[in-house]
Amino acid sequence: MKCIGPFSQVVTLRGLPEQGALADEQLEIIEAGAVVVDYGHIVDVGRFDQLADRYPATDTTLIEGEHVLLPGFVDCHTHCCFAGSRAQDYAMRVAGKSYLDIAKAGGGIWDSVTQTRAASRSELVRQTAMRVNRLVREHGVTTIEVKSGYGLDVINELKILRAIREANLYTPADLIATCLAAHLKPRDFDGDAAGYLEHVVTALLPTVKRDRLASRIDIFIEESAFGTAEARRYLQQAKAMGFEITVHADQFSAGGSALAVECGALSADHLEASTDAEIALLAGSDTVAVALPGASLGLGMGFAPARRLLDAGACLAVASDWNPGSAPMGDLLMQAAVLGAYEKLTLAETLAAVTYRAARALGLADRGTLDAGKRADMQAYPTADYRDILYHQGAMKPTQVWKFGACIQ
Amino acid sequence: MKCIGPFSQVVTLRGLPEQGALADEQLEIIEAGAVVVDYGHIVDVGRFDQLADRYPATDTTLIEGEHVLLPGFVDCHTHCCFAGSRAQDYAMRVAGKSYLDIAKAGGGIWDSVTQTRAASRSELVRQTAMRVNRLVREHGVTTIEVKSGYGLDVINELKILRAIREANLYTPADLIATCLAAHLKPRDFDGDAAGYLEHVVTALLPTVKRDRLASRIDIFIEESAFGTAEARRYLQQAKAMGFEITVHADQFSAGGSALAVECGALSADHLEASTDAEIALLAGSDTVAVALPGASLGLGMGFAPARRLLDAGACLAVASDWNPGSAPMGDLLMQAAVLGAYEKLTLAETLAAVTYRAARALGLADRGTLDAGKRADMQAYPTADYRDILYHQGAMKPTQVWKFGACIQ
Repeated sequence: MKCIGPFSQVVTLRGLPEQGALADEQLEIIEAGAVVVDYGHIVDVGRFDQLADRYPATDTTLIEGEHVLLPGFVDCHTHCCFAGSRAQDYAMRVAGKSYLDIAKAGGGIWDSVTQTRAASRSELVRQTAMRVNRLVREHGVTTIEVKSGYGLDVINELKILRAIREANLYTPADLIATCLAAHLKPRDFDGDAAGYLEHVVTALLPTVKRDRLASRIDIFIEESAFGTAEARRYLQQAKAMGFEITVHADQFSAGGSALAVECGALSADHLEASTDAEIALLAGSDTVAVALPGASLGLGMGFAPARRLLDAGACLAVASDWNPGSAPMGDLLMQAAVLGAYEKLTLAETLAAVTYRAARALGLADRGTLDAGKRADMQAYPTADYRDILYHQGAMKPTQVWKFGACIQ
Repeated sequence: MKCIGPFSQVVTLRGLPEQGALADEQLEIIEAGAVVVDYGHIVDVGRFDQLADRYPATDTTLIEGEHVLLPGFVDCHTHCCFAGSRAQDYAMRVAGKSYLDIAKAGGGIWDSVTQTRAASRSELVRQTAMRVNRLVREHGVTTIEVKSGYGLDVINELKILRAIREANLYTPADLIATCLAAHLKPRDFDGDAAGYLEHVVTALLPTVKRDRLASRIDIFIEESAFGTAEARRYLQQAKAMGFEITVHADQFSAGGSALAVECGALSADHLEASTDAEIALLAGSDTVAVALPGASLGLGMGFAPARRLLDAGACLAVASDWNPGSAPMGDLLMQAAVLGAYEKLTLAETLAAVTYRAARALGLADRGTLDAGKRADMQAYPTADYRDILYHQGAMKPTQVWKFGACIQ
């Protein structure tokens, strides 16, 4: 057992509502605060002097200088297990070329599929570990969801999911795998989209289940990918097999989030095209609305209606969507801060969206706040005022990161 | 004399038009390239093997692994000499509070003026050097314009300009000082805006000139700051004293850029509110159009019409606007990449905007390209494909930076 502190401020994020708008005044901020940690979990949080009295026999890790302690960030939507650069796509897109032009030149998701299929599992492990370790060390992200979806056949989807599991051995972060075999209909599959999904259900998901490669299933609902009718059947089948559900919804056209709510999905992600109807549905459900500003910044498009979602009462999370095509930056805090500047989110709303509300999007109740019983996933920023962290829009980096109570930086 | 290389690619940025649109195909990219440097300047640029033959007696600094060499970036518009955080303003702004609410709570530029006036010169030197050294080391920015403007009286404007000059002793970057005493009308000045400007002309600028504290004068033209009539008189007087001119123009309402062109300003900066009329004026002039996406990202507003400016034939530069109020991020490459994603700028246009075209906005013909005779201000990125640099939207950092031929990282 050890006591870590004093921090200028400990921002606990505890005791806040699960959904809806938040004012900064609702944040619990403990001045001269500290945490007591034991076996990777938080035992107590409070004022440093009071904790010292309460736990007199405890070792103390003294923190010198001005620092603010936050929960480690949770990035609840990434595609960071892939091979190959899509820099050519990016260059064509900023030069004004259309999606079709880019596809004709060999670009688009299919290019990542081709390169990821060609990569060995060990190469995917190496690249994924490198990427997630950068998120941990530079950005204080301690839990990272990682989707498959660049395999699109049984062998390669399994290779990717196994690579994600193996990459977890090379990082202090927790990697949460999601099977996104339904990313798009593979060009090389003989049959229609519904036939492909049926193939996934019968030939892939049983192995994913048996080998515990992922407990989550995702599908990209969009005209260019899968329609709602075939997606509904797929999600129902996956749910019947015991998988949790998440959905790529409303990125370019509305519709997916209604199905997500109908299927009781943990989250509906993207939402740039959500209208008042989808906002009301999400707000009236337990499905977390996940905004992905990195995709907006990568494509040069508008943001998800985060302000309206919160005002309607939804649970808003923000994730990086880190992927080689539309969101190649991978800087969660910067993206969340910029979304907050455009959508006018309070600091509390933005911080909640990358901590406990993002954890909820992953179904993880054991992290995202600094509170007794939670995992000691934490990060410290070099300032005496927590407001400085979002103010610098990602330019301020954590100086220390703890995962499961261990200082990893 | 030494030869540095081989680099996977040397992107020279030389031989390109001063104004207007650029295709990526126009970029000169030397595969397996190198530079020969002597006394801080570039002697030759070419293929590594050819340069080795041409300069047989020269020392060679071998570059291992895949790297792309670019000119050091030029940040031609910052306000990074200041004291005090404006995190409270930021928190209020993202919470939806108005400019007036923020001013009533003691925020706004005047807050930075108060804190900067209270700071000692040595404290300003320390903070400015810390900020610019981060730009150099992390972001490869080797020339940085720094404005005064948080003093707004003779003593404090001189203190700031002297602090900028002194900060230059603590950084390898070149700091280019600009006198922005006309940032806004000081609250504590008894008189109208025109009276204040007259005071600046008679009581401040002669000392700035005599002590060579700045060769450039800036003014913020906006309803909330200075009108065009009083600005015209001020700029004409400054020009008559031998100062170069730059203008904060068209940020919230159009008008300033027309005066900038009329006065032969080196640059007109901001331009978020520029209309077709201002775009045509700038395109038909030698005045560089400087977009400041960091202010858009900080305020959550739209970007300057960069695409239309280029298509009309203007010279477009991009700068960070790093300041404690509207642009607290200070990450030029990320901001330029995001502007490019939204405005659909080719990679060549974005790279030109932060190198030789930004140098032109500062009237500096000796940098911004890799070419014989130019200063050896350079940076190397860890990739074999220059397109990766903007593709990662600022997340890829230079691994080596050279200033005036010396490797500083």
